[in-house]
Amino acid sequence: MTVTRKFVTLDANATEPLRPEAREAVLAAWAIGGNPSSVHGGGRRARAVLETARTELATLFGATPDNVVFTSGGTEACALAIHGLGRAGPVLAGATEHDAVLRAVPQPLTVPVDGRGVIDLAALDAALAAHRPTLVCMMLANNETGVLHPIAEVAALCRAHDARLHVDAVQAAGRLFPTLDTLGADSMALSAHKFGGPKGIGALLLRGDRARPLPPLVAGGGQEQGRRGGTQAFELASGMATAARAARAADQTAIARLRDRFEDAARDAGAVVCGAGADRLPNTCCVALPGVASQTQLIALDIAGLGVSAGSACSSGKVARSHVLAAMGLGALAGEAIRVSLPWSVDDAMVEHAIGAYRTMAQRLARRAA
Amino acid sequence: MTVTRKFVTLDANATEPLRPEAREAVLAAWAIGGNPSSVHGGGRRARAVLETARTELATLFGATPDNVVFTSGGTEACALAIHGLGRAGPVLAGATEHDAVLRAVPQPLTVPVDGRGVIDLAALDAALAAHRPTLVCMMLANNETGVLHPIAEVAALCRAHDARLHVDAVQAAGRLFPTLDTLGADSMALSAHKFGGPKGIGALLLRGDRARPLPPLVAGGGQEQGRRGGTQAFELASGMATAARAARAADQTAIARLRDRFEDAARDAGAVVCGAGADRLPNTCCVALPGVASQTQLIALDIAGLGVSAGSACSSGKVARSHVLAAMGLGALAGEAIRVSLPWSVDDAMVEHAIGAYRTMAQRLARRAA
Repeated sequence: MTVTRKFVTLDANATEPLRPEAREAVLAAWAIGGNPSSVHGGGRRARAVLETARTELATLFGATPDNVVFTSGGTEACALAIHGLGRAGPVLAGATEHDAVLRAVPQPLTVPVDGRGVIDLAALDAALAAHRPTLVCMMLANNETGVLHPIAEVAALCRAHDARLHVDAVQAAGRLFPTLDTLGADSMALSAHKFGGPKGIGALLLRGDRARPLPPLVAGGGQEQGRRGGTQAFELASGMATAARAARAADQTAIARLRDRFEDAARDAGAVVCGAGADRLPNTCCVALPGVASQTQLIALDIAGLGVSAGSACSSGKVARSHVLAAMGLGALAGEAIRVSLPWSVDDAMVEHAIGAYRTMAQRLARRAA
Repeated sequence: MTVTRKFVTLDANATEPLRPEAREAVLAAWAIGGNPSSVHGGGRRARAVLETARTELATLFGATPDNVVFTSGGTEACALAIHGLGRAGPVLAGATEHDAVLRAVPQPLTVPVDGRGVIDLAALDAALAAHRPTLVCMMLANNETGVLHPIAEVAALCRAHDARLHVDAVQAAGRLFPTLDTLGADSMALSAHKFGGPKGIGALLLRGDRARPLPPLVAGGGQEQGRRGGTQAFELASGMATAARAARAADQTAIARLRDRFEDAARDAGAVVCGAGADRLPNTCCVALPGVASQTQLIALDIAGLGVSAGSACSSGKVARSHVLAAMGLGALAGEAIRVSLPWSVDDAMVEHAIGAYRTMAQRLARRAA
């Protein structure tokens, strides 16, 4: 008899599984092949696929197609926005922003969040008045907690102080479908693999009716209207647009119910839910277990067949104290939290498995810690 | 009866068709999924695929795995090299470099080529002495003509003048397998889709036994040892390494024979072969037809079912006078050339079709021009 150990990964905020529709779209585009910049028939066919994907994303996220700039992913999209829109003066960023933003700004001025992880609007107003920044960077949803910032209010403050607003929507997009207009943003970063598209493609959406110029980070052959050089990976762009369309049709309330079920079970097992009082993404749960280091929890859960993470999966395998939870004033808990984030493919059995693994882990380790 | 019009694309230097082995590798990696930065089991499996690809590319191109930095493609790889290695002083570049290099340097100092398109070593020596550059950028093979530069001699001059050398091997790699050592280069840029891998992935290879630090263009989460942030598209990396391995096993002399057959036919039809006297890539043929604009030739060939290009396919559909051929002193011919570049999948029938289309086009248009 062979015993297959069940392993369930609930780490969608690190990356979602590729949606079958997106895989098929990439395969179909690969079968076409070609370079969208080539003027011959083969190039025109590739270009048509690229422009269809561009238009679809533009429609879903409220941009004009001319203002969808394909990049290699969300990190590059944020870096491009900051490079292009934030060069003339200081840049403000929320204290819980992702490294994709914080490390793209030479000297970021950070704005505090409250205990729920929500941006402090009064502090933002004061910082806008004091520093007169060129650009404010604010994520729509935090990657570790799922906490949403009130971007429309942030945008109103930015407008009042003549600052531009870049919204890192990498973690939110596909679960929510914000538009540049509803956000009031000058730019918005997207990453395909965070909503079930392929890795290696993302986009920066820019506000405006006509193509908005932007100094490129990578100039190259002048693609993307001079805003991002390099052969356009139109096959991945097609996968990205297809994934976004599929995500749009998904039932997020069903995912929220499963998330809540896990969260209730974790609370019963002694966990503190981080950001609980705030509006949050439907799929994300950040739970701290007092007295038990994140790393210890991760190892125990990994052995029990549950793959989750401690905060951002964006440095090479590190498990550091979370700057997000620290900024929320969680003290020691900032080093004692894990993130459970449900993918589009989640089902009841996966969540039951996760609850079982979490309970066992918490009983064993929390007792030892106490 | 249905008549299917035959369309043959011989534009491999714009992009190669995806090799089936590479497609299968990406599909296999997609089935694994995950984020290589995640510490749990799912992340480790993704990371293993990434590191296998890294090691394979390192072996094929003579780098240590720690010095293979994955990027989104060749353009970004060149931009990263210039950003990282060329910031402290002037940058010299060959006059026939790709825009990926020329537009990444704020004020490039260009070094002339001779009538064959080969770098003028005496002029390079003089420029090194006069400008004392930090970095010299030189392509191994030109994308428009296939002409090879004597990189080892370039490297010796760079060493003598304490300049670093970045080699844009984007067009050469996969047809040739240069190593950092044989080139004498500090860095080398690769692009997967130029040798039958997927678009959206490339690499910058750095010289050195230990991981060589490099200030990133995109910092993000510190991936690639802090040299290039953003979730690593390990699926594409696997496709890239697999394509390189397949390219290594390919018969380049068979491709050169087919190229020569086309070139002989084009000459018979009145064409001038650009760069004919130089060592060239086996698959590339650049032929000028006196008195007939490139654009006119392209349109006629496109209608006849042959997709080729006029020089670089790197800006949005432009057909401009070639700066490469102009630098070779070809005068009016610089606006009268097309490039025929054979993909890995080329066969006799495709080349015969191309010869037929070219002959017909040349007879009709050259007569009119005369």
